[in-house]
Amino acid sequence: MAKLLVVYDQPTNKEGFDAHYFGTHIPLAEKLPNVKSVQANRVLGVQNSDLNPYLVVQIEFDNMEELNQNMGSPQGKELTADGKNLMEFISKPPTIMIVD
Amino acid sequence: MAKLLVVYDQPTNKEGFDAHYFGTHIPLAEKLPNVKSVQANRVLGVQNSDLNPYLVVQIEFDNMEELNQNMGSPQGKELTADGKNLMEFISKPPTIMIVD
Repeated sequence: MAKLLVVYDQPTNKEGFDAHYFGTHIPLAEKLPNVKSVQANRVLGVQNSDLNPYLVVQIEFDNMEELNQNMGSPQGKELTADGKNLMEFISKPPTIMIVD
Repeated sequence: MAKLLVVYDQPTNKEGFDAHYFGTHIPLAEKLPNVKSVQANRVLGVQNSDLNPYLVVQIEFDNMEELNQNMGSPQGKELTADGKNLMEFISKPPTIMIVD
């Protein structure tokens, strides 16, 4: 399984972030062709970090080839473009990790 | 689903880390009572971070109550204790996030 892991720090505007994230951004992620799953989880606790994470999102694909194809698709580009709209509610871009 | 997400930075000794991690630490995590899944994934790329992550591990439970009970069990304590053995191969403790 190849995954995109996206870690958002505490938003500057939680209500605005949540509304846009769950109302618009997650539905766009779920439209990625051949995406296996999209999971968003609230961070309840953190150890050994200077970060103050708020939300961890995992987008799963069968393999790295699928991940790359998906992110390069029109739907992937729409998702990436919408990420910029989230910047209104956060003070820095999320940490993104590609794992396999 | 409640999850423990553990992010290890690049080890100072990769061979030693991998041998202990996959040979001892993961099998201990898999012995946790009622654990749903244990997944370890290599980090292939990272964006928007000062970190240099190496491995992301996800330990899944049905809910937070199960997570807390599991980590407090004898098997959970053995897993935590074994984490100290990994410090020989890494320069700092991993970031641990509890998410739900």
